[in-house]
Amino acid sequence: MGLILEEQENDIVLVPPSNFSMVEDGIFRSGFPQPCNFAFLDTLNLRSIIYLCPEPYVEENLGFLRSRNVRLFQFGIEGKADPSASIPKATIMEALKVLIDVRNHPVLIHCKSGKHRTGCLVGCLRKFQNWCLSSVVEEYQHFAGAKSRKTDLRFIETFDEMYLRQCLYSIIYQYQGYGSNKRRLLYSEENLQNPQITLV
Amino acid sequence: MGLILEEQENDIVLVPPSNFSMVEDGIFRSGFPQPCNFAFLDTLNLRSIIYLCPEPYVEENLGFLRSRNVRLFQFGIEGKADPSASIPKATIMEALKVLIDVRNHPVLIHCKSGKHRTGCLVGCLRKFQNWCLSSVVEEYQHFAGAKSRKTDLRFIETFDEMYLRQCLYSIIYQYQGYGSNKRRLLYSEENLQNPQITLV
Repeated sequence: MGLILEEQENDIVLVPPSNFSMVEDGIFRSGFPQPCNFAFLDTLNLRSIIYLCPEPYVEENLGFLRSRNVRLFQFGIEGKADPSASIPKATIMEALKVLIDVRNHPVLIHCKSGKHRTGCLVGCLRKFQNWCLSSVVEEYQHFAGAKSRKTDLRFIETFDEMYLRQCLYSIIYQYQGYGSNKRRLLYSEENLQNPQITLV
Repeated sequence: MGLILEEQENDIVLVPPSNFSMVEDGIFRSGFPQPCNFAFLDTLNLRSIIYLCPEPYVEENLGFLRSRNVRLFQFGIEGKADPSASIPKATIMEALKVLIDVRNHPVLIHCKSGKHRTGCLVGCLRKFQNWCLSSVVEEYQHFAGAKSRKTDLRFIETFDEMYLRQCLYSIIYQYQGYGSNKRRLLYSEENLQNPQITLV
């Protein structure tokens, strides 16, 4: 009974960041984490963060990452609501490569609100996983709510995930769980040391 | 290259059920799955389904479960929008016991729309995980949208997850990952054969 009481006293009420959700095994999404969210983030045992804004990372959050040995991948994408500004495809492609690499999992994707930039990256991941477009759009809108942007939806719709798929087919990774039949990107030392290059 | 082309031809466009989301490792939620969602459900490798409606399960879906050897746990909760009708606590408690038992994972929770009954069960799980109440409410509203019900929110707020926690502390399970510091319910044959009863 002593142990139980002790455990209960140590219980911390956990506050997930705004717009938080699990995307896949080892992949999470949210708005910008605040210090009050750090105890919750601890429970995710993050190995990395994909941060999609051009602004330098907040010092307090940097300290949190350093103390937990979490790696920060920053891909600066402007967050303008200007309808003529479009998401840069090449940047999303680079972020996607980091995102699907299980060596970086568990990973948290976030921007400022967790709606537009994060929504675009997750949307591209879903296409890579063969989700039908209407389900991808439904998920985007689920998180963007009233702030849903047509430019984002057009970006997701026209994003060519086949290019990335072909790149990956041709290099050092093995799949299981992602793409068709949920193949998943697996990392193995063996493959790294003896890369099996398949020419496509 | 032959293999790659072949794989691409076999690609099926995957359609998740309405209101689908991942809740935790091995726990998913959605609205009632339709036959067009079966290929997607296959990618989840479900071991069980928690179905929260009193109506008998649809024959077509029963066939799907049988062919995949997925176990159905049904907890019949009336879906009335009547504000005086409240969610039965004892039923949610039983469903929660099935839900947190990793022997049943991966598990899909669903009712009809994936909003109210499913939202209440997930809300109670979040309390069990020590989420702060405002985050639990935010998640409930995220899925219920304009159909959010005050009776559901009151049910979640007053639900006593401590009772379940104490029950579980006293029986055959080990925790890691759920509750405080994300202890997770672990099942081990050893514990089953030699139950360590701790009196609380």
